[in-house]
Amino acid sequence: MGRVELNILGCGSAKPTLIHHPSCQVLNVHDKLFMIDCGEGAQTMLMKMGLKWSRLSHIFISHLHGDHCFGLLGLLSTMGLQNHGGEIVIHTIRDGITLFKAQTDYFCREMPFKITFDEISVGHAEVYADDAVTISTFPLKHRVPTVGFLFEERQGGRHINGEMARFHGVPIYFMNNLRAGEDFVKPDGTVIANELLTTTPTPAVRYAYVSDTMPAEKYLPYIEGVDWLYHESTYASEHAADAKARFHSTAAQAAEVARKVGAKNLILGHYSSRYRDESVLLNEARAIFPATILSNEGMKIPMSK
Amino acid sequence: MGRVELNILGCGSAKPTLIHHPSCQVLNVHDKLFMIDCGEGAQTMLMKMGLKWSRLSHIFISHLHGDHCFGLLGLLSTMGLQNHGGEIVIHTIRDGITLFKAQTDYFCREMPFKITFDEISVGHAEVYADDAVTISTFPLKHRVPTVGFLFEERQGGRHINGEMARFHGVPIYFMNNLRAGEDFVKPDGTVIANELLTTTPTPAVRYAYVSDTMPAEKYLPYIEGVDWLYHESTYASEHAADAKARFHSTAAQAAEVARKVGAKNLILGHYSSRYRDESVLLNEARAIFPATILSNEGMKIPMSK
Repeated sequence: MGRVELNILGCGSAKPTLIHHPSCQVLNVHDKLFMIDCGEGAQTMLMKMGLKWSRLSHIFISHLHGDHCFGLLGLLSTMGLQNHGGEIVIHTIRDGITLFKAQTDYFCREMPFKITFDEISVGHAEVYADDAVTISTFPLKHRVPTVGFLFEERQGGRHINGEMARFHGVPIYFMNNLRAGEDFVKPDGTVIANELLTTTPTPAVRYAYVSDTMPAEKYLPYIEGVDWLYHESTYASEHAADAKARFHSTAAQAAEVARKVGAKNLILGHYSSRYRDESVLLNEARAIFPATILSNEGMKIPMSK
Repeated sequence: MGRVELNILGCGSAKPTLIHHPSCQVLNVHDKLFMIDCGEGAQTMLMKMGLKWSRLSHIFISHLHGDHCFGLLGLLSTMGLQNHGGEIVIHTIRDGITLFKAQTDYFCREMPFKITFDEISVGHAEVYADDAVTISTFPLKHRVPTVGFLFEERQGGRHINGEMARFHGVPIYFMNNLRAGEDFVKPDGTVIANELLTTTPTPAVRYAYVSDTMPAEKYLPYIEGVDWLYHESTYASEHAADAKARFHSTAAQAAEVARKVGAKNLILGHYSSRYRDESVLLNEARAIFPATILSNEGMKIPMSK
């Protein structure tokens, strides 16, 4: 099993400040990078955080508000100048394809890589899968069509106990069967139980990105028991009326969601520019859900167990 | 006469670095702000430099390469959140109108101010005029249609010598006539020559912004004798072949242009990311045109005489 690590490139909300960048995260799953939202300045933060352009080939856009996608064109253009080939896939709703494609057709004509758009709909669906991870959408409740993203690391195989395997003469070609949990039958017919040859696999990580939303029952089933939950927390409870009016959440509401779904850890973000110091958000969330942290630009959150 | 001051918000070229932002300048003419190009991050630099959003209502885009316009949407969106009304005019070629309007129609629907597009063509034409300044375009020679901008502060009236005017009994209503250069005729018929009552007006400032271009005869006539010339200088002479291939200029070529047109001061910018230290550009330019300075983010260049 490889590493799963979340990188915070931006955790502010629409009105930019000199403290925060708009929304952008990069999830590293076994050294493949998945970008989640792409606010202005994403490319600068990517450089600052030492993340490799060449490992990034999927970008997921939760919704079409500028603070979640205005960094996309700059990022793509710069990736073009880096001169590596390959393909980059933008996962976005149909309107996003229309808007971004008009721009990439114009500004990215001479790029050395292919830009592909993958249309996602505002519901629950698998949008990406490889050997290491599956990624699915789930619907949120915001002023415009918005989805969250669930990243589920695939359960790895059982760990082989090399000494025991050698002792019982397990041949190389049978190792994957061991990882898959099979018993080993020796040439003389003796059965060696898998548990004697392997140990329990590393538990897989589940990470849910809950983008702009007001709290709603409809998305809870999709994020049941996640190891890590990022939930937008634009406001403090004092401004709950603003949160409701703008289809956003307070930190306390984010914590309530984390508690309800039995998440193991909660990450706050998408802070309103009115808070100079987000400890008010942290304190209000921790009163309900103690395992809460504040995200901040430049932060790397190791998620592997 | 008020103040004329150039603010440098970004002076890097296409490939972003952690040192420079892409192209953006703001010319302050008597407290009205005119933005020239709008690379990604322009809105952040505007805040950092303490420039007032409310004084900005014209943005001039020299050409449609991303490093000159990808900050536009973020800037407009944020101006919308600032909640001031009025109008903002984007001066750009027809393709820019098509591209940007598709985006502003989508992302800026709820803005409290009006966004107007003014089509400019790649030639010489006046594109803006008020009491303080006239702004005109001139054609450059780049890989895509590109213009430069000439800002000409209007000549102010003659300065009135208050003591002399009182001594000769010039009435208040005649002051503007004095500023315009008229003699004063006393009730008894005595003519008081204007030169006795006024002094020479402050010379007006002329500033030329020469955006991405290779050196070419065609734009020289428009920038004859300017007080301040910004000329792109992407490369050092060592990389002159790159400059030519990409339709850019070296610092030495920029200096040669300054010398040829009899500019008083030269400002370098649009530095290739390959130079960690732009003193090589400065030295090469100064060898040809001594009154050269390097632009840098955060710099304010007073241009009033």
